[in-house]
Amino acid sequence: MPGNTFGSFFKLTTFGESHGVAIGGIIDGCPAGIKIDLATIQKELDRRKPGQSAIVTQRKESDEVVFKSGIFEGITTGTPIAFEIKNKDAKSKDYSHIKDVYRPSHADFTYQKKYGHRDYRGGGRSSARETASRVVAGALAKQVLRSVSFHAFTFSVGNLSLVQPVEEIDFSLTEKSITRCPDPNLASQMEEYIKKVRKKGDTVGGVVACVIKNVPVGLGEPVFDKLHAELGKAMLSINAVKGFEIGSGFEGTKMLGSQHNDAILKNERTGSNYSGGVQGGISNGMPIYFKVAFKPVATLMQDQKSIDVHQKEAQVKGKGRHDPCVVPRAVPIVEAMAALVILDQLLLHQARKEFEF
Amino acid sequence: MPGNTFGSFFKLTTFGESHGVAIGGIIDGCPAGIKIDLATIQKELDRRKPGQSAIVTQRKESDEVVFKSGIFEGITTGTPIAFEIKNKDAKSKDYSHIKDVYRPSHADFTYQKKYGHRDYRGGGRSSARETASRVVAGALAKQVLRSVSFHAFTFSVGNLSLVQPVEEIDFSLTEKSITRCPDPNLASQMEEYIKKVRKKGDTVGGVVACVIKNVPVGLGEPVFDKLHAELGKAMLSINAVKGFEIGSGFEGTKMLGSQHNDAILKNERTGSNYSGGVQGGISNGMPIYFKVAFKPVATLMQDQKSIDVHQKEAQVKGKGRHDPCVVPRAVPIVEAMAALVILDQLLLHQARKEFEF
Amino acid sequence: MPGNTFGSFFKLTTFGESHGVAIGGIIDGCPAGIKIDLATIQKELDRRKPGQSAIVTQRKESDEVVFKSGIFEGITTGTPIAFEIKNKDAKSKDYSHIKDVYRPSHADFTYQKKYGHRDYRGGGRSSARETASRVVAGALAKQVLRSVSFHAFTFSVGNLSLVQPVEEIDFSLTEKSITRCPDPNLASQMEEYIKKVRKKGDTVGGVVACVIKNVPVGLGEPVFDKLHAELGKAMLSINAVKGFEIGSGFEGTKMLGSQHNDAILKNERTGSNYSGGVQGGISNGMPIYFKVAFKPVATLMQDQKSIDVHQKEAQVKGKGRHDPCVVPRAVPIVEAMAALVILDQLLLHQARKEFEF
Amino acid sequence: MPGNTFGSFFKLTTFGESHGVAIGGIIDGCPAGIKIDLATIQKELDRRKPGQSAIVTQRKESDEVVFKSGIFEGITTGTPIAFEIKNKDAKSKDYSHIKDVYRPSHADFTYQKKYGHRDYRGGGRSSARETASRVVAGALAKQVLRSVSFHAFTFSVGNLSLVQPVEEIDFSLTEKSITRCPDPNLASQMEEYIKKVRKKGDTVGGVVACVIKNVPVGLGEPVFDKLHAELGKAMLSINAVKGFEIGSGFEGTKMLGSQHNDAILKNERTGSNYSGGVQGGISNGMPIYFKVAFKPVATLMQDQKSIDVHQKEAQVKGKGRHDPCVVPRAVPIVEAMAALVILDQLLLHQARKEFEF
Repeated sequence: MPGNTFGSFFKLTTFGESHGVAIGGIIDGCPAGIKIDLATIQKELDRRKPGQSAIVTQRKESDEVVFKSGIFEGITTGTPIAFEIKNKDAKSKDYSHIKDVYRPSHADFTYQKKYGHRDYRGGGRSSARETASRVVAGALAKQVLRSVSFHAFTFSVGNLSLVQPVEEIDFSLTEKSITRCPDPNLASQMEEYIKKVRKKGDTVGGVVACVIKNVPVGLGEPVFDKLHAELGKAMLSINAVKGFEIGSGFEGTKMLGSQHNDAILKNERTGSNYSGGVQGGISNGMPIYFKVAFKPVATLMQDQKSIDVHQKEAQVKGKGRHDPCVVPRAVPIVEAMAALVILDQLLLHQARKEFEF
Repeated sequence: MPGNTFGSFFKLTTFGESHGVAIGGIIDGCPAGIKIDLATIQKELDRRKPGQSAIVTQRKESDEVVFKSGIFEGITTGTPIAFEIKNKDAKSKDYSHIKDVYRPSHADFTYQKKYGHRDYRGGGRSSARETASRVVAGALAKQVLRSVSFHAFTFSVGNLSLVQPVEEIDFSLTEKSITRCPDPNLASQMEEYIKKVRKKGDTVGGVVACVIKNVPVGLGEPVFDKLHAELGKAMLSINAVKGFEIGSGFEGTKMLGSQHNDAILKNERTGSNYSGGVQGGISNGMPIYFKVAFKPVATLMQDQKSIDVHQKEAQVKGKGRHDPCVVPRAVPIVEAMAALVILDQLLLHQARKEFEF
Repeated sequence: MPGNTFGSFFKLTTFGESHGVAIGGIIDGCPAGIKIDLATIQKELDRRKPGQSAIVTQRKESDEVVFKSGIFEGITTGTPIAFEIKNKDAKSKDYSHIKDVYRPSHADFTYQKKYGHRDYRGGGRSSARETASRVVAGALAKQVLRSVSFHAFTFSVGNLSLVQPVEEIDFSLTEKSITRCPDPNLASQMEEYIKKVRKKGDTVGGVVACVIKNVPVGLGEPVFDKLHAELGKAMLSINAVKGFEIGSGFEGTKMLGSQHNDAILKNERTGSNYSGGVQGGISNGMPIYFKVAFKPVATLMQDQKSIDVHQKEAQVKGKGRHDPCVVPRAVPIVEAMAALVILDQLLLHQARKEFEF
Repeated sequence: MPGNTFGSFFKLTTFGESHGVAIGGIIDGCPAGIKIDLATIQKELDRRKPGQSAIVTQRKESDEVVFKSGIFEGITTGTPIAFEIKNKDAKSKDYSHIKDVYRPSHADFTYQKKYGHRDYRGGGRSSARETASRVVAGALAKQVLRSVSFHAFTFSVGNLSLVQPVEEIDFSLTEKSITRCPDPNLASQMEEYIKKVRKKGDTVGGVVACVIKNVPVGLGEPVFDKLHAELGKAMLSINAVKGFEIGSGFEGTKMLGSQHNDAILKNERTGSNYSGGVQGGISNGMPIYFKVAFKPVATLMQDQKSIDVHQKEAQVKGKGRHDPCVVPRAVPIVEAMAALVILDQLLLHQARKEFEF
């Protein structure tokens, strides 16, 4: 089916191109009776917005969200919640140079081939601008979930990587740095590094990690819709993501079973948490822990080899204002997608629970 | 929705517990008019079956698949294809010791909590035995796809890892070794290592990689159902999988954009393939390349700490016949899930193509 | 998506052709912990089975259902429930005469054109034999629903139609007559009429009505998935059905609003029930009441004009053993589909309820 | 799943309350490369809009549709098409009298019970105003379908019913009368009758019929998603609809099989068309013909008995401007829903066709 809907119960459908009139979405399936705090939603959106710091793109979109339905007297009615963010600072002429040329490692070529007709301005639908709609929906999902808490943070930028065990991280430090890395020293190094990379017209990748606390036991639907499979799909659907791992992930493949198994203790908690909070595709009540790999941003302020729509060789070089590293702005997006998955699975789990033992 | 269905068009629903009467499934949406080669399907199943070599479990299930509908005179009719594999060598008494005890890093605890009632024999529904049904459906999908080829192989076991560039691998070597690693020397080392680990009653993890060739340009449905997001979900739904990465994956996060971008050449191919054959969530015609991380098998022939269903401390130790390393038998499962994703996306893409430029 | 799945939560996928090895299905999403009474399920199936009386087809299928998964120690486990009914009395040679000829008002022509390849024996997949799987799933759904009661009955055969107000019908009489009409006098007339029609090698249509009691207020998902829209789709999917109406239905279009509106009384009941228990697509707690129109069976023991697959004119005449009127055997099928809809909607409603006021 | 999405491929999600900021929707899955004629879409909307004639509500909404995405340089891009219709002439104070009182045969009671919190102004989400979004999407679907033609018309109002055989109707006359009945004499009578009913503060029901021509053979997905089951669900989801029948419908139940069967002629056409263009759930190439029953409008300019939210008895009487008969404005809505079904099924059919004989 067409791919612009996420979730089954708390179901988000998004629309909009980077340089069109607006972006936005419809949330269908939000429970009725939820008091909505609009300021908190806008705050989440501000964590993602361009121009927020010295190490992100200097585009100046205000990204104000307006709700159009589904909320009456400040409370959800159970009907679809439509929302919109107007596109204001769209400088479409910055993009006329790529009308006929495919930017390397961008979606220009594949959109052209798939659809035959594309809105090339700012990447159109393939722009990461679309993720603003996800942040709105995720912020709303968090308000429904209340007791569950989501802590995404910058785990690494290039080779600069957090070494602290995840259990010891002080999540209150995440927002203290414009890098969103909760280790202040490392955060400074990352900041310097990103600035250096940008100066060269280059970009760099990184890893966002996320811890979710207070997830009830029992979420996830084996065998195909395992909780971490849903989380994985959600994260891999974010622009620039190339990898996902839960718990011990790729490192865990090097371990022996006797090291890797999480002993179950008397209080139904496990000793270690190599499982990352999910066993057999179902949450086990331990913190859910996963990592998401973001490739270096594809738009460079350097000349690159490519071809044009007429199959001729061409040079392409970024214009306008772009992120040297997507990771700091990706942190709220990872949280938003995590909230969408958890709420969706929770609603699904509740559907049958009443009948069960 | 309940999680036992995979795909939208070529839609597989599976059933069955490890020690029940049978396992099997229904494939709905297979195109009509496909000539089915049953022997090839059985052969794929034999690549997954227990007892096939010295480094896998010694259970002796024959795993014969029987088709019950949807094929008439050897040709698909477009109606549902039901199939069944009888459970023959199920020794249920091997499992009476875990009736009331949760095995660490298994699904015993989470199934008990989610459903309140579980078939504990051999892990019941959470057993990897379920993946035999996926192999059947995947083998059928391959017969529909014909021109697309799938090459999964053992990339690493523990710390023993392939170093060869993926472009240089000779996939005809994969089936030559019981490890399914296409590098004969490395394969021998892996075999020795697995045997050593088993002797200690321990287990070890590993990585399966997969290359898919001849995928048409244009598969994948942005923004949420990106091709690699669908592949990721498919792989993460396989038992014991903890991670997925496409193209450069986690390593790519350490690169600069100027190193990572894939220059587009005159023939619409790219120079490098750090994208792994997918850009903007859509296949670009290059080989699709991804890796899947398998944790060490959780069933050990050693004592482990746990609790029982009455919250009391308990010891648990594997009985019966188990795999010391899941990777060799996982290779055909990875291929099967990849085939299910590619066919599903191809059918979806075809739905709208006729109207398009 | 392929059309062999019904429901979203209590999700039935069926398989099987009339003269294949077996028919059956998989139910995914049945709540765990439900004690299953297999005898009651078989009893429902016996109400549908051929050969049960003098006015139905004399085929002698025993229609025994066998369960293969999802039930452990007599209790559902929350995993998929697979079941199978073997095809025993299939006389395929009775159908060799229609291998190349399209029977009028049958699905032969449309299946051939849609799929290019069909199992012509006994109508293959298009045979009403498939509905036996629906009865199994519906019987299971009834066991989950418990407090809700389903009362389908024969409302009319040809021009012989019940005149009693539905509130006054004694549903305990339904099973007393082989016609399943709860008015004994009318039932006798119907029986005579059906026998007379059969003697001429002809067939006749009729209407099945259904009353559902004790449906909780609040089921149905506006705006597209209104409760009566789901019921309508369910009924229209049954073989030979040409119409569906709820409450006042087509007759209600002739009324004035002042006659038709259902006054709301102090106990939250309505005076009249022209709405048929559904308002705005949501159940209002009153009995749900609807009617389903079945056309005369298309297989006649008379010569009919048609063409063959080579576009040549041909004569066709039914052979074998067929129903002169489908209505008596359709009664349990209508109930089964109603149960599937109500349970599905109930589960969906529960998903969000906990969060709501 | 929440019920505000229709279709699987050409997938419409609608939002908006009658007296909120706006209504609208997102269409996901529209093929790329379709040239969009906005004027024609607006024209369809004008056929549905209030205030268009003397026999409909005198509300004066201009109902201008604005598109926000998915169309670039006048051509669809294959990305989501969002659209909006502002609510302009909403007189919310007309509704303060029903804040706490349930109007009989309206959705007030059921929405209150289901969601606990409702936007009572003008019926909120349950208002037929939502159908304007359907007309937009349907008009777009018609532009994709091109060669298929949709002819809905007023078949009856109260007891005034068309007697002409459907094959003889001149559809060019439908828009000549404000009743949308293609028989000019009958149309005048209907007009008089509706005016008379309105004068008494009463309302009346009626039937809309629809003929669809040039539908390709092969649409519809047995067994559950039969073409007429999908059409039935679509129609039953329209406000005020109580019944649906295809071809011979309820009248056909009174016929003998020998009268009812449609003989197949040499050119693959049938003699009669009691099947209504669908056999075995699949289109057979003949015109598709169905009828939709609309109950009398529930809002009366008369006192009616009801209760309030505190369970006390109350009187309620319509205020504001309402339709005395919904049928003339329902004609374009029926066409729109028909177009959504046919396009969705066509896209689905195309998905697999390429592989088939």
